[in-house]
Amino acid sequence: MTTRPAIEAAAARIAPHIRHTPVLALPGAALGAPCDVALKLESLQVSGSFKARGAFNALLQAEGPARGVIAASGGNHGAAVAHAAGALGIPAEIFVPAIAAPSKVARIAEAGARVVQGGDTYAEAFAASEARRAETGALSVHAYDQAEVLAGQGTLARELEADLPGLTHVLVAVGGGGLIGGIAAWFAGTGVSVVAVEPEGCPTLHTALAAGQPVDAPVGGLAADSLGARRVGSLMFPIAQGVLRDSVLVTDEAIRDAQRRLWSAARVVAEPGGATALAALLSAAWTPPPGARVGVLVCGGNCDPGSVA
Amino acid sequence: MTTRPAIEAAAARIAPHIRHTPVLALPGAALGAPCDVALKLESLQVSGSFKARGAFNALLQAEGPARGVIAASGGNHGAAVAHAAGALGIPAEIFVPAIAAPSKVARIAEAGARVVQGGDTYAEAFAASEARRAETGALSVHAYDQAEVLAGQGTLARELEADLPGLTHVLVAVGGGGLIGGIAAWFAGTGVSVVAVEPEGCPTLHTALAAGQPVDAPVGGLAADSLGARRVGSLMFPIAQGVLRDSVLVTDEAIRDAQRRLWSAARVVAEPGGATALAALLSAAWTPPPGARVGVLVCGGNCDPGSVA
Repeated sequence: MTTRPAIEAAAARIAPHIRHTPVLALPGAALGAPCDVALKLESLQVSGSFKARGAFNALLQAEGPARGVIAASGGNHGAAVAHAAGALGIPAEIFVPAIAAPSKVARIAEAGARVVQGGDTYAEAFAASEARRAETGALSVHAYDQAEVLAGQGTLARELEADLPGLTHVLVAVGGGGLIGGIAAWFAGTGVSVVAVEPEGCPTLHTALAAGQPVDAPVGGLAADSLGARRVGSLMFPIAQGVLRDSVLVTDEAIRDAQRRLWSAARVVAEPGGATALAALLSAAWTPPPGARVGVLVCGGNCDPGSVA
Repeated sequence: MTTRPAIEAAAARIAPHIRHTPVLALPGAALGAPCDVALKLESLQVSGSFKARGAFNALLQAEGPARGVIAASGGNHGAAVAHAAGALGIPAEIFVPAIAAPSKVARIAEAGARVVQGGDTYAEAFAASEARRAETGALSVHAYDQAEVLAGQGTLARELEADLPGLTHVLVAVGGGGLIGGIAAWFAGTGVSVVAVEPEGCPTLHTALAAGQPVDAPVGGLAADSLGARRVGSLMFPIAQGVLRDSVLVTDEAIRDAQRRLWSAARVVAEPGGATALAALLSAAWTPPPGARVGVLVCGGNCDPGSVA
C-alpha cells in the first residue's frame, strides 16, 4: 500500500541521496498561461529526473543485493537506477529499447552500469531484462509498478506540500503511472487535486480509465522515450480511479511549445515528457477553475539541450 | 551611496517585476567541487540574467521617461532594459557591439526595443548611445556605473542572505562590476566574504585593484560578450577596495568546464559569464577555507543551450 506513512518513511530513507528540488514561481504572463504557475524543477534532480527517488527507495530497502541490480527503462529510470546503484556500490545492468534517447543511454553508461540496448518498445526491453534476471538472480527494480517505487516518487508530493502552502491543483505527466500514483496517494483526502496529463501519442492512463482497468495503449509521439509505457501499472490504477478527477491529453505540438516557452521565459530545459504537464495548461487542454493555485511538475530534463530553443 | 537601506528600498520597488530566484544546494561531489555548493540560479531571472534588477530599479525611479530610454550593452543589460521598458510601457533603444551573442540580440528585439548594432567593443556602443541620447533626450541607464543599478543588483545579496543562513562566502563574476558592487555593499561589515572572479581574458577588477584605480584592461575570451567591460565602474571601485578580500582569475577552459558540469550534474544552462564564478571553485583558482559555506551566483543563462553539452 502506498500511504502517507510509507511516503514519509521513503522521504527519510532517500534524503541523503536526492535533492530537494527548487520551485520557480512565475506570473501567468511569463509563460502565456491563464494563471500564475509554480514550477517544481524536478528536472534538476539527481540523474536528471524524478526517477532517482523511486530507485533509491527500492535499492535502500533491498536485502542482500550483492548479485547486482537489473532494470528495464526507456531511459530515465535506467539512468536513475544506474546512478543509485553507483552511489551505493552495487553493480547494475540496464536494458533499454532502441528508441531510447542517445543522451539518456550515455548517462546510464557514464554512471558505470552495463547497458543492453534492443527491442522496439519498453515492453520488449523489460522481457529481456526478466530473462536475464532469471539467469543472474539480480534484484529487479520496476520502472513504475512496484510499491517502493511509488512511495519514492510520492516524496515529490510531500515536497510540493511543504514548498507551496495553499496549492489547489498539481499537474503531472503520466507514462506508466508510478509518479502520479505516488503523488495521488499523498494528496488523497487533502484539498489538492491531481491532474493527469498524457500525450495523445501514448495515452495509457486515459485509455485505462475509460476501460475501467489497465489495458494496452499506443506508444508513439514526441515523448515516447520517457512516457511510452504500454499500459499503466496495476498498483497505481486503483489509486488513480479513487483520487484523480481530471485526465487530459495534449498534442506533440503543445509539448514542443511548452518546451520552448520554458526555455524562453525561464531558461529551464525540459525534455518532452518533462514539459507535458505544463503543455496542458498552456494549450488549454486543462483549464484552472477561478482561484486555483497551480503547481506544475517539470519532471525531467534529459534531452539534447539544443532541442529546446 | 549604495547602502543596505538603498538596497532594501530597491528590493521593495522591483519586487512586483522580478523573480526571487531559486537556490539549488548540491554536495561537492556532484560538481567535483571541494565543498558543498549552494547555486543561486539567477540565470532563471526575468530577461535571463541579474541585469533585470538594476534595470527595473533605474526605470522605476526615473521621472518623466516619456522620451524613452536608451542603453548600451554587450547583451544582458540591453535585454534587461528592453524587457523592463516593455513591461513599463516605455520605448527603448539599445546599442550593442558587434560581438554580442545573436541569442541576446534576438531577445532584445523580441522585447520590443529598437536594436542598433555596431562597434567592436562595449565602449564604442556606449559612445554611440551617448551621441544618440544627446539627440533624443532619452533617459540613459548605464550597464553598471549608476547608483540605481548597483542598488538593484545588490538585491541579489539580500535574497542570498535570506535563502542561505550561515553563508560564509559568495563567489561573483565581474565585468563592469555593478553586480559585485551592489553585493559587496550589502555584505560589508557582515561575516560574509565576497569573492570576485574574472576571466583571464577580461580582468577589469583584478587590473584595477593592482593599479589602485579603475584602468583599461583587455577585453577578450569566451565570456567577453557579458563580462567584457573595458574598465570597472567608478562607483563600485571604492566598495571593492574596502570590502573584497579575494579577486581571482580563471581560464576559458575552466569556464567551459563549469558550463558542462552545471549541465551534466544539474541540468542548469549557464552562459560563459554565468559559469565564471563556479569555475573558480572547480578549477581551484579559489580554495574554500575549512568550514566555509559557499554560495555561487549563476548570474546568466543567455546562450545557445546546445553550447553547454
